[in-house]
Amino acid sequence: MQSIPLWGETLRLLVELAATAAFALSGILEGARKRLDAVGVCAVGFLAAFGGGTLRDLLLDSRPFFWVRHVEMLWGVLALCVLAMLFLRSRHVQVTERAMQWPDALGLGLFVATGTHQALVQDLPALVAVLMGLVTGVAGGVLRDVVCNDIPTAFHDHRPYAICAFAGGWVYVGLWTLHTPGWVSLTACVVVTAGLRGLALWRDWRLPEWRF
Amino acid sequence: MQSIPLWGETLRLLVELAATAAFALSGILEGARKRLDAVGVCAVGFLAAFGGGTLRDLLLDSRPFFWVRHVEMLWGVLALCVLAMLFLRSRHVQVTERAMQWPDALGLGLFVATGTHQALVQDLPALVAVLMGLVTGVAGGVLRDVVCNDIPTAFHDHRPYAICAFAGGWVYVGLWTLHTPGWVSLTACVVVTAGLRGLALWRDWRLPEWRF
Amino acid sequence: MQSIPLWGETLRLLVELAATAAFALSGILEGARKRLDAVGVCAVGFLAAFGGGTLRDLLLDSRPFFWVRHVEMLWGVLALCVLAMLFLRSRHVQVTERAMQWPDALGLGLFVATGTHQALVQDLPALVAVLMGLVTGVAGGVLRDVVCNDIPTAFHDHRPYAICAFAGGWVYVGLWTLHTPGWVSLTACVVVTAGLRGLALWRDWRLPEWRF
Repeated sequence: MQSIPLWGETLRLLVELAATAAFALSGILEGARKRLDAVGVCAVGFLAAFGGGTLRDLLLDSRPFFWVRHVEMLWGVLALCVLAMLFLRSRHVQVTERAMQWPDALGLGLFVATGTHQALVQDLPALVAVLMGLVTGVAGGVLRDVVCNDIPTAFHDHRPYAICAFAGGWVYVGLWTLHTPGWVSLTACVVVTAGLRGLALWRDWRLPEWRF
Repeated sequence: MQSIPLWGETLRLLVELAATAAFALSGILEGARKRLDAVGVCAVGFLAAFGGGTLRDLLLDSRPFFWVRHVEMLWGVLALCVLAMLFLRSRHVQVTERAMQWPDALGLGLFVATGTHQALVQDLPALVAVLMGLVTGVAGGVLRDVVCNDIPTAFHDHRPYAICAFAGGWVYVGLWTLHTPGWVSLTACVVVTAGLRGLALWRDWRLPEWRF
Repeated sequence: MQSIPLWGETLRLLVELAATAAFALSGILEGARKRLDAVGVCAVGFLAAFGGGTLRDLLLDSRPFFWVRHVEMLWGVLALCVLAMLFLRSRHVQVTERAMQWPDALGLGLFVATGTHQALVQDLPALVAVLMGLVTGVAGGVLRDVVCNDIPTAFHDHRPYAICAFAGGWVYVGLWTLHTPGWVSLTACVVVTAGLRGLALWRDWRLPEWRF
């Protein structure tokens, strides 16, 4: 009977690892594009991978940080940075970016669920919980772009990203208040977030233009 | 006899709401100017409105954040972002910016007083308290400009802004050490900060050039 | 018999003061180069001098901040900003930058040792401790550059800086696990970090190019 949660736990871990790798790679590629040196590429990779969760833990005042409890994730991202610098060439970039889309979308959903959950456990109001989910999922990419001296992609590419996460966060909050079992809420949040993101990319949805 | 504090409390609340709206609007307008999408405009509005106070609370380690206790402020700013995107047009910008100057100056004074007060209550040294006041009043605008990929206005437009807040903060500290009643110190700080800011704008004062 | 530690303590304090001044000056010069006003120059000076240590204390959740315990450092940096604006002229810049190199390198070593030490005392894993050392030494410069709307120098000038700090951090961790007396680990960390940095500058070492 315990096999389903165990199976689910393994799946969850796999998604988390794949998503962290996808986030780190987005930072590594951005660093390479900006011609940073080896130190800069690693720094931006770390910021993209761990920035969102760290900011959430800072705001929720929850220690130890998740990367202190799972220090092997730090080693993994460090290894990924070194491997990317050794083996990644510009002809691989487009393939890598396409391959990253799904882990990135799934990871967005997972991170939003995690952040929202942590805030709900602390009895914070629903809107705050959703915002914490958003911070977890989006802040890493924002920090990556700020350090690389760009306006954050999430804020100006007119493609739905944070807004999918926003929807997913509300789904999680809704199911939580209905006392749905944890893995159902988690799955629903991931499916809604990643599904909306996938739909948006597939149908080329655009955020409404502000005719200003 | 209770009518004066109550009246004062209402006034204080009104100034706080007006100032938060003015700060949020400064972010919304900056986001619009940079052609951000709907998500970006909201994000920059939130950063401008809540960034300073949040950074202060982080530094002073005081939880819950003020926007957790007053979650209706989050809803208000969200509504303001949506309304601005629906109704604000470029021909309104100059009017809006002029109309924002007074709430902004009053809010600067109020936020400086709040930040300084919170630090003094924690028995921090005077200079630290004034700096916390400054962070409360100025950091939101700095974060707004950093995310929009600009050098912060507060740091390079040669118009006295932070320095008015600095003066106001010292007034608050001075009156606090003299055990003046809270509302007197608060009023004095707001009057000095907003007055100096108003004077600076009216007389077109400039920060001394550094002939470097 | 107490004379050696006392002598060492004085030396340590001198290095710390010189390094803080060098970090602040790097911010002041960057601010001047970007034509910031007086407020901006001070703000960037403060960020460069105190940003790294403050971020470390935030992440390690250790209060009071070091600049609350040593509020005279805040006054000192404020004085330095004012003096620099009064007396520094562009013909002094090159001399100042050369004179800053050694205090900066020694300070990098010292700050890395301090950050690593604080994390080890909290029983954090070795890699996390080294990262905290890095944050202490490097984050101030990164914040300075981000606020001045540049890509951080530490990330793209291809000169070893953070990587010297990384090596020094591991030396500290290694000696700590061997229960070496504190002043030995501290000295070794400073010597390795500053020595590598000095060598790198002298021999004009470059970080390996990523042929991407």
